[in-house]
Amino acid sequence: MSAQAPVLTFLSDYGLADDFVGVCHGVILQICPAARIIDLTHGIPRHDALAGALSLAGSLPYMPPGVHLAVVDPDVGASRRAVALRFGDGRQFVGPDNGLASLVAPAFGGVVQAADIAHSRYRLEPVSATFHGRDIFAPVAAHLAAGVPLADVGAPVDPDTLVTLELPGPAVQAGGAIVARVVYVDGFGNVQLNVSHDELAAWGLKLARPLRVSVADGATRVPATFVRTFAEVSEGSLLVYEDAYRRLAVAVSHGDAAVRLGAAPGAEIRIEPA
Amino acid sequence: MSAQAPVLTFLSDYGLADDFVGVCHGVILQICPAARIIDLTHGIPRHDALAGALSLAGSLPYMPPGVHLAVVDPDVGASRRAVALRFGDGRQFVGPDNGLASLVAPAFGGVVQAADIAHSRYRLEPVSATFHGRDIFAPVAAHLAAGVPLADVGAPVDPDTLVTLELPGPAVQAGGAIVARVVYVDGFGNVQLNVSHDELAAWGLKLARPLRVSVADGATRVPATFVRTFAEVSEGSLLVYEDAYRRLAVAVSHGDAAVRLGAAPGAEIRIEPA
Amino acid sequence: MSAQAPVLTFLSDYGLADDFVGVCHGVILQICPAARIIDLTHGIPRHDALAGALSLAGSLPYMPPGVHLAVVDPDVGASRRAVALRFGDGRQFVGPDNGLASLVAPAFGGVVQAADIAHSRYRLEPVSATFHGRDIFAPVAAHLAAGVPLADVGAPVDPDTLVTLELPGPAVQAGGAIVARVVYVDGFGNVQLNVSHDELAAWGLKLARPLRVSVADGATRVPATFVRTFAEVSEGSLLVYEDAYRRLAVAVSHGDAAVRLGAAPGAEIRIEPA
Repeated sequence: MSAQAPVLTFLSDYGLADDFVGVCHGVILQICPAARIIDLTHGIPRHDALAGALSLAGSLPYMPPGVHLAVVDPDVGASRRAVALRFGDGRQFVGPDNGLASLVAPAFGGVVQAADIAHSRYRLEPVSATFHGRDIFAPVAAHLAAGVPLADVGAPVDPDTLVTLELPGPAVQAGGAIVARVVYVDGFGNVQLNVSHDELAAWGLKLARPLRVSVADGATRVPATFVRTFAEVSEGSLLVYEDAYRRLAVAVSHGDAAVRLGAAPGAEIRIEPA
Repeated sequence: MSAQAPVLTFLSDYGLADDFVGVCHGVILQICPAARIIDLTHGIPRHDALAGALSLAGSLPYMPPGVHLAVVDPDVGASRRAVALRFGDGRQFVGPDNGLASLVAPAFGGVVQAADIAHSRYRLEPVSATFHGRDIFAPVAAHLAAGVPLADVGAPVDPDTLVTLELPGPAVQAGGAIVARVVYVDGFGNVQLNVSHDELAAWGLKLARPLRVSVADGATRVPATFVRTFAEVSEGSLLVYEDAYRRLAVAVSHGDAAVRLGAAPGAEIRIEPA
Repeated sequence: MSAQAPVLTFLSDYGLADDFVGVCHGVILQICPAARIIDLTHGIPRHDALAGALSLAGSLPYMPPGVHLAVVDPDVGASRRAVALRFGDGRQFVGPDNGLASLVAPAFGGVVQAADIAHSRYRLEPVSATFHGRDIFAPVAAHLAAGVPLADVGAPVDPDTLVTLELPGPAVQAGGAIVARVVYVDGFGNVQLNVSHDELAAWGLKLARPLRVSVADGATRVPATFVRTFAEVSEGSLLVYEDAYRRLAVAVSHGDAAVRLGAAPGAEIRIEPA
């Protein structure tokens, strides 16, 4: 029977220092005791819906089909909608209507049905002004996991009116330099850029190519090599590579590239042939 | 069958950097493989039993009934008792006898039965001097989850002799100012005060009322507004509101109130009409 | 049925800020939906295989038998092998061949069978250069948990060729001083040393013995007492004790010994009779 337990994944910017995540787990299990909850991460930078959307785009393809709950909600209590969505492949999503689902939706057949759940019959009353994860999103997600149809959790919404996020691509300059932006820095200090597998292919960079990497004003240029794996450069050296999410990234073998480059999310990174 | 799995919630100040929490999970599942463990939080500030008691008071009402394990235990190895408790509604609690359960107990019908488990037959031998979570609390909680009666896990204790904690209330001054204390600062920097829903009602503050908030000596007074939701003030402004745990709190819309005010747990906060 | 769910424990240095751990959970549950996953810890210091090996040695004896997945992998993508192991008692291990399993293996009857899984048929294709946790280790561990025989997940390896780690012991000097190394500092600031229960017994230290503890050059000597429990010294005092993992350790009652001593992992600690 465990094999058929409904899967509910959960991503947020709640962190684990407080009891917010634990409280949502309790709410879910009161409603759907059989749910198998997978905590994708609760370490999304506070209020950073784009970072949440990117994490969902990279991780949900590895998740079993189910209900995908995501709460990164800087505008809780304001006029943003709360929504439940169904993708073309049957997976469902619950969260604020701020684009969290928009980067992953195409991989699952797009949004084919949507409901506004702000006044869902499945809310926990009284609904607090600030903790909609507990009072709206978790209980609605749990009811969907328990088999309640999407049409029953809220008022119909036209999928074309949903908020979407976009990740602008890099610019390739004359002379072969690429100007990109830092999308994410992981806990190892690896620096992920807004350069997809296809954009990298279009740029035409060749393996083993010596490069120079500079941040923002280009005052500091650090030598690097374009390689497949960390082991192809010596310890402490900078490398440029396609990471596990198929994005261009910059790392230091056995080291921290974000510290080395002084690069935080949003920073402009220029990579040019040496 | 999953639907009937016994629930065991777990709160501690162990943090997640070490393997303490994982080891307790293993101990529990060796004894009660069917247990459904909900990690409430392991981010309680080290040794802060009052913070643990407040988190339990706010979160356990959202948990399915079961065994509630809580370990915030600055006096491990000293003379404090280790206890298992049964509340009037049937829920059970396991932890040190330092008041952790005392703030939530009234919501569940109070403590109707108690046992001293320091020498429980269900301890793991040899009992270490410092890790009673692993050697006493987790195995006793797991046996209770597996159906062992409370009377069987230790020696009877008179519930009236249990340690209790109290949260002193705020003071309302002539002129309408309230002097409160910071109870908790969450990861978003929201500042929770020792002012309950009822105390707030007694104070009689009206919505949209302009206020001044000051810390300790009152040298710095920051303008604020009493509102229901963050969205009612402009980004970066201070607001005073009733939070999701029904306590008075101070926040900054899209910002960090603890940093803005320089307020840590225990600090005195004065709120007065502007 | 829950009672017979296969157990899969998981330790890494991934941290919880990123979605790496959540992604591995999803991969595991796609393959083995019935698996009971126990997160031992994901807070192992980055790239510190010895710290991972010590955590496994201390914690796996408290885990139900199952598949033990461990990923601390500074040389991912280099020539280090990826392995699946079977211990004499039937437990299985999956991880890089860098000694992670070597300190705990003797407790489980040693390694009796091994397989190189770098090219396992159970890998997720395409295998990334940097996230073998997701693409190799998690899927192989999940297949083992689902009942696939070890011989089926990779090419046979001679257990005698596996990498092993060693923890050098302390030195006892003339005059009765012991010179040890800091093995680990936990979140409470307790300082664990490379002195085992047997080495402590051989040293012959007597309870209640007054001591002096110094770091490195010995310039600062802090008085301490050898006791069983924290409660035997006054708050703020230094104590030397055998910790819950049966290693000699230094702590401060209600305080942080690592800060007091300025001691980090690897530091030399000298303990001598006062």
